[in-house]
Amino acid sequence: MKFEKGLVSIDGKIIKPKDAKVSIFDHGFLFGDSAYETLRTYFKKPYCLKEHLLRLKRTTEGLSLKLPFTFKEIEAQINKLIRQYPTPRDYYIRIVVSRGVGLIGMDPSLCLNPSLIIILKPMVKFPTDYFQKGIKLSLVTIRRNYKKAMDPALKTGNYLNNVLAFIESRKNGADDALLLNYKDELTESTTSNVFIVKNNMLLTPHFETGILDGITREHVIKIAKQNGIKVVEKSIKEKELRNDDECFLSSTLKNIMP
Amino acid sequence: MKFEKGLVSIDGKIIKPKDAKVSIFDHGFLFGDSAYETLRTYFKKPYCLKEHLLRLKRTTEGLSLKLPFTFKEIEAQINKLIRQYPTPRDYYIRIVVSRGVGLIGMDPSLCLNPSLIIILKPMVKFPTDYFQKGIKLSLVTIRRNYKKAMDPALKTGNYLNNVLAFIESRKNGADDALLLNYKDELTESTTSNVFIVKNNMLLTPHFETGILDGITREHVIKIAKQNGIKVVEKSIKEKELRNDDECFLSSTLKNIMP
Repeated sequence: MKFEKGLVSIDGKIIKPKDAKVSIFDHGFLFGDSAYETLRTYFKKPYCLKEHLLRLKRTTEGLSLKLPFTFKEIEAQINKLIRQYPTPRDYYIRIVVSRGVGLIGMDPSLCLNPSLIIILKPMVKFPTDYFQKGIKLSLVTIRRNYKKAMDPALKTGNYLNNVLAFIESRKNGADDALLLNYKDELTESTTSNVFIVKNNMLLTPHFETGILDGITREHVIKIAKQNGIKVVEKSIKEKELRNDDECFLSSTLKNIMP
Repeated sequence: MKFEKGLVSIDGKIIKPKDAKVSIFDHGFLFGDSAYETLRTYFKKPYCLKEHLLRLKRTTEGLSLKLPFTFKEIEAQINKLIRQYPTPRDYYIRIVVSRGVGLIGMDPSLCLNPSLIIILKPMVKFPTDYFQKGIKLSLVTIRRNYKKAMDPALKTGNYLNNVLAFIESRKNGADDALLLNYKDELTESTTSNVFIVKNNMLLTPHFETGILDGITREHVIKIAKQNGIKVVEKSIKEKELRNDDECFLSSTLKNIMP
């Protein structure tokens, strides 16, 4: 079995990746009942930590899940991991809040102690080609989760929708997937928001289509506006996507990728 | 922390519940990337094991996940657990196939060894009142997962849709939830199929609304037909539900519950 390099913190206790375990009775394992955030460091400092923690809080609130540590405590745990695992590279950081151990059943009140897991590992760079030549995306038949059923704005441990889309995209010979929603509107990729360029305007699916409110997405929109580029958040159909001039993804790990 | 009584088997190794753990790098934990079945025994024998294993296989195939053991091997592991944990009661059995440990990423090919986990525990009986007086169901605002996004016919570790519906039903003072789909059609409850009785006919949501093909549901339909009761699988809207003569749930653990 292949484990990540790096270090893990479970409720503040630092553990090597291969020893980092949870009970099979953790509802995070039984039901994917967890919230998470992915972030990275620049010059060994977590980037946009506050924004990520605020979104983590929105997700946990959406799941009626209590954050077991304060923002300050989470930040301290991240910094402790960074000190204990020095590397010449920058870090990838995953923060997971899991419902915790409880009897089997859907009632969250069966679980009294949510758990905080932080994974720290050296950043793996994407191939330079991905940024210079772009990646291939496949518009898959799997649809993005319906907002009123499982809101894509919540970053949770229920990730099979994305996994299934990814599998289909690979079968189609692509690097990743683009997903439509139940109304045939473009939503996002499996771990990224999407933008298209048409007639020098920047177009991106509006929030109501069922997408993550990406932190990098917000930055892209802000920077584009500051540079006099018109940005429109709207409903985008397949035809408009296929007639675009350019297309790129945005995410914390990719920044922007054509 | 409260652990279930009983025994757990992980890839054939028998472990006490409190020691049964998986790596946090198991994609079953990271992404809810797992398939499962719930069954029970009668007179210490697993009931409808073949049907449950066939459905488990349909779920794993739907997830491009390989069953790590044959049906015979799974049956042998269940029987070994039963022999090692004698109880005067019947057993609840949960079979989980998890994607296994791998580097963090959606690509299932990162995980080479799917894992089989079997949980055996004494059956907990529902209160007699539930069967005699019936339970309260709330028609919640959370919608059932969209079939083309995350098919409710697949029994997976992505269970937050049901958890959120359950939480909402409890806030409404009910015991459990009924969910509509994106087209306002009745689908099912959080862990049960649903039937209504109207003018001596048995009505139940048809498969295309996005439901589990419940084994007990099949039995109810078959037995009703054998007894000359007309059964119609159809699209049911809220109005028809509210005008029913009777309503009941069906599931492996509940059998039928009014």
